Amino acid sequence: MPVGLPEQTALLPIAGVRLSSVAAGIRYKDRTDLLLIELAEGSETAGTFTQNRFCAAPVEISRKHLGQTSPRYWLINSGNANAGTGSAGYAAAVSSCEAVASEFGVDTEQVLPFSTGVIGEQLVVSRIESAMPALGTGLKADGWNDAANAIMTTDTVPKGISEVVEIDGKAVTITGIVKGAGMIMPNMATMLSFIATDARIEASVLQSMVSDLVNRTFNCVTIDGDTSTNDACMLAATGVSGVSISAKGEQAAFDEALEAVFGWLSQSLVRDGEGATKFVEIRVSGAESDEDARAVAYTVAHSPLVKTALYASDPNWGRILAAVGRAPINSLDIASVDLFIGDVCLIRGGEPDPGYSEAQGQAVFAKEEILISISLGSSAGSATVWTSDLSPEYVSINADYRS
Amino acid sequence: MPVGLPEQTALLPIAGVRLSSVAAGIRYKDRTDLLLIELAEGSETAGTFTQNRFCAAPVEISRKHLGQTSPRYWLINSGNANAGTGSAGYAAAVSSCEAVASEFGVDTEQVLPFSTGVIGEQLVVSRIESAMPALGTGLKADGWNDAANAIMTTDTVPKGISEVVEIDGKAVTITGIVKGAGMIMPNMATMLSFIATDARIEASVLQSMVSDLVNRTFNCVTIDGDTSTNDACMLAATGVSGVSISAKGEQAAFDEALEAVFGWLSQSLVRDGEGATKFVEIRVSGAESDEDARAVAYTVAHSPLVKTALYASDPNWGRILAAVGRAPINSLDIASVDLFIGDVCLIRGGEPDPGYSEAQGQAVFAKEEILISISLGSSAGSATVWTSDLSPEYVSINADYRS
Repeated sequence: MPVGLPEQTALLPIAGVRLSSVAAGIRYKDRTDLLLIELAEGSETAGTFTQNRFCAAPVEISRKHLGQTSPRYWLINSGNANAGTGSAGYAAAVSSCEAVASEFGVDTEQVLPFSTGVIGEQLVVSRIESAMPALGTGLKADGWNDAANAIMTTDTVPKGISEVVEIDGKAVTITGIVKGAGMIMPNMATMLSFIATDARIEASVLQSMVSDLVNRTFNCVTIDGDTSTNDACMLAATGVSGVSISAKGEQAAFDEALEAVFGWLSQSLVRDGEGATKFVEIRVSGAESDEDARAVAYTVAHSPLVKTALYASDPNWGRILAAVGRAPINSLDIASVDLFIGDVCLIRGGEPDPGYSEAQGQAVFAKEEILISISLGSSAGSATVWTSDLSPEYVSINADYRS
Repeated sequence: MPVGLPEQTALLPIAGVRLSSVAAGIRYKDRTDLLLIELAEGSETAGTFTQNRFCAAPVEISRKHLGQTSPRYWLINSGNANAGTGSAGYAAAVSSCEAVASEFGVDTEQVLPFSTGVIGEQLVVSRIESAMPALGTGLKADGWNDAANAIMTTDTVPKGISEVVEIDGKAVTITGIVKGAGMIMPNMATMLSFIATDARIEASVLQSMVSDLVNRTFNCVTIDGDTSTNDACMLAATGVSGVSISAKGEQAAFDEALEAVFGWLSQSLVRDGEGATKFVEIRVSGAESDEDARAVAYTVAHSPLVKTALYASDPNWGRILAAVGRAPINSLDIASVDLFIGDVCLIRGGEPDPGYSEAQGQAVFAKEEILISISLGSSAGSATVWTSDLSPEYVSINADYRS
């Protein structure tokens, strides 16, 4: 069960965007697994992709196509990542784009392909080709909730959110969906997120918005940027609302709403993390640099011993200390380290706090949402990371399922 | 159940070494948890310790004492790591040394303390002081098997080995014991190993032997050196056999026997890894440097997705590829990557091998001992890492037990 995720609400249409989800039989039976997102002519797209060198064929192609044109179609399949599939996989992804291009009368370069699911199996492209007529028939503005379902793999719930802001008396809407649930050890989870707004935003501005927000949201739940073979986060601006935004900071309300969407979507990955029973925020301050702070936060967040203690609601804070002590940073003065869980002080100046009691620790560790604050007492570097616990369920999911 | 570990055999005495194990009630009931190892006068000791900045008080003191004298006593307790215990913990470790020094008439600096067990709880030093008379009475040459039992925490079996070599017509014996079972994610496991020989070896030579061998054995099952709060590997040479060894390489038979002991002990940690059902060797070759090769090997070895696939005997090799692709190295030409499991080729030149069948993959993944070979096709850097799989049992052990 996801941690602190309310039931999915009705996602708002974005003027200039139509969506269609069908059951193409890519891998799953009796569920939708192919999604087409159509963007009105004149829409701009920006995005970020995985840094993994074994990136999937669709990632290579999406990156290339995005550099060549303004995309009109995003084609997403679940059930097969089309990664580790060599030249045959590349050809399959190109054929998928060609099928969309031919069906809807656009250039192949105007189609961006995305895949998520098992690695190392060939994608049967004929199943995608056969689905084209149904995809076309199904296109509708009100298709975001269905879309959130179609892109799921081990996700337990569909995840999406909408925000509306008023700018110059006109409503501007932002809607986004996300899939990905392997965020307990996020290096290898496939995360796909598709976000659109009806504001008009020039491509270079849109790209800087995505890059900045991904750093402050999605990258707080991943290490080393996005490093699965297939990760992608896309943002489209259709311009159909008639509201133009020419720079970041020009419309504070829009910036806030966009950040809220990115923040909600990225946190929802952790809340629906595989086997997750806790949502954990790790805040590190007082580091020599933000980079050092991030290194400490990730070392704690990725420690299986910390994660299993969180799962067990066991205030075994020694494991947190051990993780801090081995973080890959240049210097650490343990006599300056403070450690709080929630508002309970465990370590002050590197020594156990005399006021701490096991009962206090148990009370904060028993909560579903836990804040771990670590102050290094050195300089002003800081970082926040969101993570979840490690449960036997996580192992079962990944031992039983080919993701 | 440990993977491929034969039942513990009778460990051979080392002339000049006596051992005594008692139940001091440190944390456990009805089991031995305090071990004293006595070295004859004239013995030399060398060792390596954890690199963790939050190293435990006993580690600080052992490192300091080892720099000051030739140790006569090693005092080891299980059940409490005496780590994260601040100045009170430091004082407790000093008091433990003083108790031994006073009981046996040596300097406090000639006692090295070692602790393993739960982090963050104060060590009740009176229990150690009260045990002194019994420790003295129990000292015997034939105490290695009992010793291997006394230092266990989550280990499922005691682990130790002996080797005998003949040098100039005289027998030279080496016996070692080890504890540690959290090697699935080895960064945070406490590993303690105590090894002795009756050869005569000068301290500086002994230290270079330990450092070299730890790099090639124990560090193949750990990342970033030894990074739990308490890790230590100690080697003593009593000289009582009358055989002197003045340099590495002088006695090939001795060097081989010593390496066999270090290799066996370090591999036994993985074989008895928490929840381990597989023993996995990862060999990386063709890297730009040995360091790069190690980085790739560790990235694969620490991937929870690879580990759960190994547990499930699922030839989900895409997860191995994904781990290689995100390893923190400067360059990787995926078109040069070969991947073998056992003698089955999965990837050749970055492409799926056309001769590979799922049945072949299943056959090699089903084995209890698995060899993963990755060739990067770049230069001559290589590394070997030993690891185990990730099972639901691992989570249960670490969620239920305060280690």
